Amino acid sequence: MLDELHEECGVIGIYNGENVARNVCMGLYALQHRGQESAGFAISNGEKIRVRKSMGLVSTLLREHNVDELQGFAGVGHVRYSTTGSSTLANAQPILISCKWGQLAIAHNGNLTNAAELREEMEEAGHIFQTTSDSEIFLHEIARTQAPNLKEAIKKAISKLTGCFCMLILSKDTLYVARDGFAFRPLSIARLGNSWCVASETCAFDLLGANYVRDIQPGELLTITKEGLQSETFTQKGRLAHCIFEYIYFARPDSKIFEQSCDKIRRKMGKQLARECPVDADIVIPVPDSSTTAALGFARESGIKFEIGLLRNHYVGRTFIDPTQNVRSQKVRLKFNPIEGVLKGRKVCVVDDSIVRGTTLKILSKMLRDSGALEVHIRIASPPVAHACYFGMDFPNAGELAASSMSPQEIAKMLGVESLGYLSIAGMKECTSAPSDYCAACFDGIYPEYIGKEAGKFSCG
Amino acid sequence: MLDELHEECGVIGIYNGENVARNVCMGLYALQHRGQESAGFAISNGEKIRVRKSMGLVSTLLREHNVDELQGFAGVGHVRYSTTGSSTLANAQPILISCKWGQLAIAHNGNLTNAAELREEMEEAGHIFQTTSDSEIFLHEIARTQAPNLKEAIKKAISKLTGCFCMLILSKDTLYVARDGFAFRPLSIARLGNSWCVASETCAFDLLGANYVRDIQPGELLTITKEGLQSETFTQKGRLAHCIFEYIYFARPDSKIFEQSCDKIRRKMGKQLARECPVDADIVIPVPDSSTTAALGFARESGIKFEIGLLRNHYVGRTFIDPTQNVRSQKVRLKFNPIEGVLKGRKVCVVDDSIVRGTTLKILSKMLRDSGALEVHIRIASPPVAHACYFGMDFPNAGELAASSMSPQEIAKMLGVESLGYLSIAGMKECTSAPSDYCAACFDGIYPEYIGKEAGKFSCG
Amino acid sequence: MLDELHEECGVIGIYNGENVARNVCMGLYALQHRGQESAGFAISNGEKIRVRKSMGLVSTLLREHNVDELQGFAGVGHVRYSTTGSSTLANAQPILISCKWGQLAIAHNGNLTNAAELREEMEEAGHIFQTTSDSEIFLHEIARTQAPNLKEAIKKAISKLTGCFCMLILSKDTLYVARDGFAFRPLSIARLGNSWCVASETCAFDLLGANYVRDIQPGELLTITKEGLQSETFTQKGRLAHCIFEYIYFARPDSKIFEQSCDKIRRKMGKQLARECPVDADIVIPVPDSSTTAALGFARESGIKFEIGLLRNHYVGRTFIDPTQNVRSQKVRLKFNPIEGVLKGRKVCVVDDSIVRGTTLKILSKMLRDSGALEVHIRIASPPVAHACYFGMDFPNAGELAASSMSPQEIAKMLGVESLGYLSIAGMKECTSAPSDYCAACFDGIYPEYIGKEAGKFSCG
Amino acid sequence: MLDELHEECGVIGIYNGENVARNVCMGLYALQHRGQESAGFAISNGEKIRVRKSMGLVSTLLREHNVDELQGFAGVGHVRYSTTGSSTLANAQPILISCKWGQLAIAHNGNLTNAAELREEMEEAGHIFQTTSDSEIFLHEIARTQAPNLKEAIKKAISKLTGCFCMLILSKDTLYVARDGFAFRPLSIARLGNSWCVASETCAFDLLGANYVRDIQPGELLTITKEGLQSETFTQKGRLAHCIFEYIYFARPDSKIFEQSCDKIRRKMGKQLARECPVDADIVIPVPDSSTTAALGFARESGIKFEIGLLRNHYVGRTFIDPTQNVRSQKVRLKFNPIEGVLKGRKVCVVDDSIVRGTTLKILSKMLRDSGALEVHIRIASPPVAHACYFGMDFPNAGELAASSMSPQEIAKMLGVESLGYLSIAGMKECTSAPSDYCAACFDGIYPEYIGKEAGKFSCG
Repeated sequence: MLDELHEECGVIGIYNGENVARNVCMGLYALQHRGQESAGFAISNGEKIRVRKSMGLVSTLLREHNVDELQGFAGVGHVRYSTTGSSTLANAQPILISCKWGQLAIAHNGNLTNAAELREEMEEAGHIFQTTSDSEIFLHEIARTQAPNLKEAIKKAISKLTGCFCMLILSKDTLYVARDGFAFRPLSIARLGNSWCVASETCAFDLLGANYVRDIQPGELLTITKEGLQSETFTQKGRLAHCIFEYIYFARPDSKIFEQSCDKIRRKMGKQLARECPVDADIVIPVPDSSTTAALGFARESGIKFEIGLLRNHYVGRTFIDPTQNVRSQKVRLKFNPIEGVLKGRKVCVVDDSIVRGTTLKILSKMLRDSGALEVHIRIASPPVAHACYFGMDFPNAGELAASSMSPQEIAKMLGVESLGYLSIAGMKECTSAPSDYCAACFDGIYPEYIGKEAGKFSCG
Repeated sequence: MLDELHEECGVIGIYNGENVARNVCMGLYALQHRGQESAGFAISNGEKIRVRKSMGLVSTLLREHNVDELQGFAGVGHVRYSTTGSSTLANAQPILISCKWGQLAIAHNGNLTNAAELREEMEEAGHIFQTTSDSEIFLHEIARTQAPNLKEAIKKAISKLTGCFCMLILSKDTLYVARDGFAFRPLSIARLGNSWCVASETCAFDLLGANYVRDIQPGELLTITKEGLQSETFTQKGRLAHCIFEYIYFARPDSKIFEQSCDKIRRKMGKQLARECPVDADIVIPVPDSSTTAALGFARESGIKFEIGLLRNHYVGRTFIDPTQNVRSQKVRLKFNPIEGVLKGRKVCVVDDSIVRGTTLKILSKMLRDSGALEVHIRIASPPVAHACYFGMDFPNAGELAASSMSPQEIAKMLGVESLGYLSIAGMKECTSAPSDYCAACFDGIYPEYIGKEAGKFSCG
Repeated sequence: MLDELHEECGVIGIYNGENVARNVCMGLYALQHRGQESAGFAISNGEKIRVRKSMGLVSTLLREHNVDELQGFAGVGHVRYSTTGSSTLANAQPILISCKWGQLAIAHNGNLTNAAELREEMEEAGHIFQTTSDSEIFLHEIARTQAPNLKEAIKKAISKLTGCFCMLILSKDTLYVARDGFAFRPLSIARLGNSWCVASETCAFDLLGANYVRDIQPGELLTITKEGLQSETFTQKGRLAHCIFEYIYFARPDSKIFEQSCDKIRRKMGKQLARECPVDADIVIPVPDSSTTAALGFARESGIKFEIGLLRNHYVGRTFIDPTQNVRSQKVRLKFNPIEGVLKGRKVCVVDDSIVRGTTLKILSKMLRDSGALEVHIRIASPPVAHACYFGMDFPNAGELAASSMSPQEIAKMLGVESLGYLSIAGMKECTSAPSDYCAACFDGIYPEYIGKEAGKFSCG
Repeated sequence: MLDELHEECGVIGIYNGENVARNVCMGLYALQHRGQESAGFAISNGEKIRVRKSMGLVSTLLREHNVDELQGFAGVGHVRYSTTGSSTLANAQPILISCKWGQLAIAHNGNLTNAAELREEMEEAGHIFQTTSDSEIFLHEIARTQAPNLKEAIKKAISKLTGCFCMLILSKDTLYVARDGFAFRPLSIARLGNSWCVASETCAFDLLGANYVRDIQPGELLTITKEGLQSETFTQKGRLAHCIFEYIYFARPDSKIFEQSCDKIRRKMGKQLARECPVDADIVIPVPDSSTTAALGFARESGIKFEIGLLRNHYVGRTFIDPTQNVRSQKVRLKFNPIEGVLKGRKVCVVDDSIVRGTTLKILSKMLRDSGALEVHIRIASPPVAHACYFGMDFPNAGELAASSMSPQEIAKMLGVESLGYLSIAGMKECTSAPSDYCAACFDGIYPEYIGKEAGKFSCG
């Protein structure tokens, strides 16, 4: 998949801890794969919340701001990816506001499907917007809600939202945590000494030495105060719709996602793929690093040798000179180099996690062949991506999705490979513990809720 | 006065021009003395407004952003000073929002005296605040106002404001310009080819080669469109209350302020001071550069030789190493050096524009004496500053004002000088064309309107 | 090994090309693993050589300098690691000088063992030094040599050097390439259209699409002009002493080093290790990424399942907050996270490429056990490192090397693991094509030449 | 003159002090007018000398480096202006080298007239050059000189130099101070508690609170150690040749230069100008700030009113957007604005310190007339500049000097003014205490020593 697809956020919150700002940033390091465009944190010292944000990676955030300047007992952090159009510091999170409930900082992972309608209604009602983030819409909803207290306001506000959201809302003394009723995106809570830690993925807990307690429940609003946790349900439980793409690509394999080890599911998918689409090959190689786990599963099941046939250069970052025009493949070459000794004279099966546009895989396939591969077979550890996502993934327009206009055979021809095999939708779902609890809309087009016309108009949190 | 006092903003707007972003920034260079903490500009291309802001000087803004990236036909710019507490990019202007009237960018110079009440009311009504600037309050008021169109909304919103404001509001196709009914701060309009130019001071027009047309009227709302200017009055004309401190210190002497040459008024004040507080001295020297004009007037009237006895180092900027503790005067010495040949064996009369705390003048007086001055006489070209300002000046607390607790004789003793003379309030006012049209509240405590309890709580625009 | 050991340089040169500066920088991206402290390039347009250097990664170099500003037909580039003491821009390469031969830019990978003597002699003779790099010593030698022309001067100068060097010397019209007679470090030449390309590793050629021609020969001086290549031998051929650590750790597995595929040798070492030190384990895991190839070989040979049990976070860069004192392992945790599902209840064999201090491996072993590993066995795909290197590797003092004072059993105890096995020296050498052509002094203490007392005093190139 | 002419350096040295790095930087602030392109300091702690340099102002140096990081008991500092071609950090000073005498840091103000010959000879002798600064040549000469000790080496090396130099050479324990026998550039020594302070201008002493002791003598080598001062003469005393332009433009008026108050001489020149070139004008105005003192003298002598008719904007720095092509005067307008109230209907006499190209004065003259000046008369407080300088001033080529091809009448016509008057050479010299002790070669073409063909080829220190 390789940079063709972007998850849109990672969130973390810590309550009642020491070195909160440091630990929030540590956690953001672990969540960096979920967003590389901006990073930020907000810390409350009980009287005042302060915020620091930067465009770029967590390492940029730490270079531009002194993390020890913000002392406090609770904090939230956020990493974000965003499309070019809205790539400004104004959209970076956490967003810190002041309203009738006092100061509130929000860190949000998700995508509201009724953002456009809500925003239009709010603008009509006299509200102003300083970002193009749909998280700001939620803040307006909290601020304008008539309620006896902040918690009730949050509950009422949340109940108006459709779509997908993992929300951390920090007031000067309380951390509120909410997850949509479909539970699209992962969100878990852990214990670290006397403090509570909430994060998008459990790999952040591991880094901090925190002990996983449980997932936040679908439709749950958790209120964390000095007195402890208080759990409420703000929406009736309906069907679940965990994003199955978290297992395929987004989440780190060392995370426990939706209460299951991502690594295990991803490996199962590789094995299932081997059963569904057997191949006659000498070696199996992954496109590192995202498909390594699936490739290991594929190799195990098929009995074909697992090899590292493509090397990834991790030093290539954002700052980059445009490659000369006549060498289009140079950008891909900068990231990947084939290992000739592994490939030469071999029939090679490449396992990748998914195909979006297919442009990178086309260049890679040629590179493999140029390095002496006799045959190149592609096996994709997920079904063809053919539909838009309105719940937090930044897919290109349907028109640019390879599978929206081409059959697998046509894609194989475009890629210039001997064969191409996809995992089936049923096969993929069966690799999970509860197939019906997942959203696979990008594959099957079956959305768990009605999608408004302007869904996706605003940047997701 | 020397860094002890800060004006809080300068604004500029250009409509229907070429190279609008460049010219707005040129104008900001000319207005830089009105604010050095942040600078920014917003440009409309007729379809979309975009904004660029930086902490620091206009030169920093131009280094951090490519001014030619924002092409358009209209723009507004802003330079801002702010107290430490609220010194963040979030408070920098122009503030760009989206609301039911579309995108709006605001550049504001002034201070709302009912900001706290309005903000409290708005928060109660469900609004959220992302800055501590009172300009944001005005934007909320526009956004929530029920009106047939944006212009009417602005009119209604403005009429709720008390205090002092020079507002430039840019929508995608129109530039609105408003000035409070007291006309506290200067604001003028000029013609530059086919374009209109509005600015805090006429020195910006000079730089751009624009021709001064007139001042914006007290209580006037000017609507500038492709069709031309349309003028309306949004408030009944009451008394005027031009800030007399603009003549004393803030405005550049080459600007025409309140329809009079700042240079001329400032010189008159120096002459009047010479008549009121004659001195037996060999030379008259200014504290450069702000009191040079007044010192010239004083020298002319008194017949005492004008000299440059203190040299100012203009290379000393914000980046600075704290001077060693036991050399308190080093920071002042970095900025000013006495010229011994001028001072030695002379009775020296120092003319300064005003005294706020008096700490710098105390160090300067000692420096003069150390350089051989036989006597040091201080003449201040304004009356004793003894009261707070709620209309755009960032005075220290009354308790820190030298004149709030000390008589001139006591101040002279504190400064360690032979004599100290202030201009009288009456004498000062008579230097202007219409004494009753000015606010001199910081001297006489007579405020032109009722001042709420929490006035000054929020940062002024 | 993990950050405990640093190669000291990578070099690249391109002659007669288009977009030379861009291509040199592309090549530096591929060589980035050989040095991350500074990067630079020098370009000749035939009349003048100009240089650009930055502290940090190639991406920093490209952010700080406009690569297209330096147009020319030939260029050299350099990436460098250096010990803290000499970490300044002055030491970054290429070094550009002017001397009687005109302008010369040098890019050097290696370590002169007689640098201290030469420098002392030169200082006595009246030379001045502006860096602490031993490359500057070589430039002095060229400049002061009596010779009919530059090439002869270089030949004479090189013949005075002992130690290890891969030198690229760019004059305004010629590129000179020299490699020491022992051929310690890799250096190859390739053809790219009409241009020649010389680089430390062939992975740079792959990125540029250049075709590998051959290795620079031991003791060869290659003169590249518009007329073509001219090869000469400046030293009598003695024994070879290729650095075997290039295979173990430094070189990228996709590079062809010393005319052999690094990947293949590294894999053979893993297999040999499996034969020498069998283990009773359920899974074999590498410490990513440097030991992945060896681990694959080990797994293949032993028949034990290969798994990814440790995940590496590639977003962790240099900018970093010090972890809190009481959590010493946090820095290691930031880089590596165990995958519990893979490890739990398993007997785990960890393959690493080498042990220097052993501190990181100790923390990793504990992490594995905490994640449920029943047993932890360490297998090292190289012998114990017990001696200093004077030929380009920045080992810690012998006293800090685990193997200099502890037996493998003692190290195993220190690491807290069930067993520890090293590859034997003989076994290691047999994995190469010509065992006697390699230097393994860091393992066996047998240096290929006499080492002066002050060897290693100056920074290597 | 206005930016058309650039002094090339300022130097400062402090020996045996506390907070040496801070004080050196303080002193550099005072000397900033002598060079704005780079700034740096080198500090010795008795064992090691370390250096910090930045492109830009002292404020940039202090932002980029932590001044307190370099602790020591002695240091030297430098500010530098340089022509575009050699504007690189490599040329910034102090230059720190290692040689047979140990570490040496040099800070140099001046211009060697035999630099090209010396450098050619040195390159022939086998030396390498890493800068294009002629200070490096001097370092080579010290390093290669056969002498019993460093002091003798410096003496022998200095005696080979021709041209103009004020040298500070810091070894780890000693500060050497040398000034050429003509004493072209100013250099003085002062006492600050127990420490010695040497600087280009006494205004640096004033800032530090140091007490001026005396000027360094022509041809003097001063050796400052823990034991105290030791003075020697390295060259026979010949004629003196103080640069008279220091009085006219370079030095700060508050400095004592060549044992006389710069302010007083500059004022005398203004008075003499009034006597030589009387004018029928209503007001006299300076071009601020450099000609203010001369204008005051002119006004006093002529009896014409002194006024401030041009305002200078000190916020305009280096970062700048190119003004639109069709508004050529915008760059001048950014710096200067006429005060209409002062100028309108008046016959204006503008006093400037000198004319180099005359382009700025032409624009200013037009601005004055556009602001209503009835007549514009220019009076220049120095003679026509018609010859190159080889002793530290960066004049344009003779061909670009207005006075090299035009008579005063022709220049007046080019400027578009009613009259133009220059100070006579004799009149100028008589304003000094000893007319024959000054070099006025840029006016009269009489150089105090033979000028080699390639003088000026290398950047001066």
